[in-house]
Amino acid sequence: MNHPIIFDTDPGVDDAQAIAIALRHPELELLGLTTTYGNVDVEIATHNALLLAELAGREIPVAQGAAAPLVKERHPPPAHIHGTNGLGDIELPPVRGQADPRSAAQFIVDTLNARPGEVTLVSVGPVGNLAAALQLDPTITGKVKRVVVMGGSIREGGNVTPVAEANMFNDPDAAARVLTAGWPLTLVGLDITHRCVLTGEHMARIEAGQGALGKVLAGSYGFYRDFYREFLGIDGCCPHDSCALAWLLRPELFTTSRGHLTVATSGDAEGQTIFAPEGRGFIETRWSRTPLVEVCLGVDGEAVSDWIADTLA
Amino acid sequence: MNHPIIFDTDPGVDDAQAIAIALRHPELELLGLTTTYGNVDVEIATHNALLLAELAGREIPVAQGAAAPLVKERHPPPAHIHGTNGLGDIELPPVRGQADPRSAAQFIVDTLNARPGEVTLVSVGPVGNLAAALQLDPTITGKVKRVVVMGGSIREGGNVTPVAEANMFNDPDAAARVLTAGWPLTLVGLDITHRCVLTGEHMARIEAGQGALGKVLAGSYGFYRDFYREFLGIDGCCPHDSCALAWLLRPELFTTSRGHLTVATSGDAEGQTIFAPEGRGFIETRWSRTPLVEVCLGVDGEAVSDWIADTLA
Repeated sequence: MNHPIIFDTDPGVDDAQAIAIALRHPELELLGLTTTYGNVDVEIATHNALLLAELAGREIPVAQGAAAPLVKERHPPPAHIHGTNGLGDIELPPVRGQADPRSAAQFIVDTLNARPGEVTLVSVGPVGNLAAALQLDPTITGKVKRVVVMGGSIREGGNVTPVAEANMFNDPDAAARVLTAGWPLTLVGLDITHRCVLTGEHMARIEAGQGALGKVLAGSYGFYRDFYREFLGIDGCCPHDSCALAWLLRPELFTTSRGHLTVATSGDAEGQTIFAPEGRGFIETRWSRTPLVEVCLGVDGEAVSDWIADTLA
Repeated sequence: MNHPIIFDTDPGVDDAQAIAIALRHPELELLGLTTTYGNVDVEIATHNALLLAELAGREIPVAQGAAAPLVKERHPPPAHIHGTNGLGDIELPPVRGQADPRSAAQFIVDTLNARPGEVTLVSVGPVGNLAAALQLDPTITGKVKRVVVMGGSIREGGNVTPVAEANMFNDPDAAARVLTAGWPLTLVGLDITHRCVLTGEHMARIEAGQGALGKVLAGSYGFYRDFYREFLGIDGCCPHDSCALAWLLRPELFTTSRGHLTVATSGDAEGQTIFAPEGRGFIETRWSRTPLVEVCLGVDGEAVSDWIADTLA
């Protein structure tokens, strides 16, 4: 089976690993990379997306998108996690290509309309581009094959607040729009990604298998791993963004649950994804009125981590 | 060791079990019951508190308190869980005594001031009486020995909303005041109580051991268990309120964590208790600025359930 995808991303170290999978996996047809602020400024995200495709010897359209959240003020990018250049502050080769003239949102709209029912939209950053695409053309909800969002947390707690995951917290208003748009959607959040650890051994295999691209993945991984060691006490790193592609290609490694998502857009729970399982009654119906979506709640984390390394080795 | 306690309650089936423990346990000196709306109207709560003490052959002051939340509108009481009379709609004997003339809040203030540093305040309903007591006399924060609150949920999800526990949802504004008042406080929430199940076997022993009081506990348990069976698929019931006393008397059965609590007072996360572990950094400091408290996150649920039955057998 072949999956035509658009990959919406803010590379970012773990984004780079996922982009490598999107570029290399034989069952993925990567139609384009769309970029957003998040782990880095959007210009850096675009630069890195172009660079990673070139290092893989591929010509892939890269369309630049959101530079800031829909409503709230932007937080500075987390340079202590991804480096100022988004790739662990390693030295990077020059980029030759340039971005598509269209905005990320327009690129998404055009691509979904060109192949209705075929294209999966995979989002691994703040979801502003998806919200903007919905604003340009609300009919894309019926044209996308599936939307896979890396973001949120149901039972795991947050990573940037006690209850919110970074992508959702970065643009909760866009998240509220995107997660309740009524399109076929799967959420892959911290409940999954915190169960997966990409080890130094995994990365050594990836470095050996990916040539010039592998050098960048391994170099940026070193910086990212220092953050995990210092702040979280983990030897290795959580390959958040690759998990979205793992779900798409190896769904049997995951357990999912159907239900309704609500996103807190203000107050101390800002950015939290609130999940009401299908059919479960609560004191009010407000949590059960949003469209049904699919949420990943369990995973064979070791198998997913091995799958990532095997894919890129 | 002896613990003088005030027990703030909205009986309620599981409240009645906990009140029985408070009346019977040799290490507890029950100074008074204060009542609040919640599982039932406050007048019914007061009636039931008086009744339970009389059935145990004890004269205990009962002071009536909050009939409604501080700010939000009140939801109707959950008669499908506790019965219209709060005790599973079983027939109840008449009550002879009457309530203390003071409000619950005044009773709390007077009692804490009479024995500074000695009295533990155990709250197992919406916490409006505690908020009102803090308003009458803010100095009680330095006079209470400890406040134990049954309520909230950190990782377990909610029971009346996807993220909120009933007591906190019933009066989130009071909860925000009480959980951040800067007094020594322990939260015993759904992370604990959902690990404990009081079985029919447990209740048979309690019925046999408690005479007239045991008849009421067992009768109301039957109604409550039907709810658990039908809505939650559990054979037995969670003895929520008894868990607060179990923590006080058998802390070695629990694991606790220090940190900061915030309560969402509006929006879709309304009533959620947000826990920031001590020393953990987040993207903003707002979750780590409230006073340090203690939160129970783990429990030997079987041992707690057995302890409840052993105490009352």
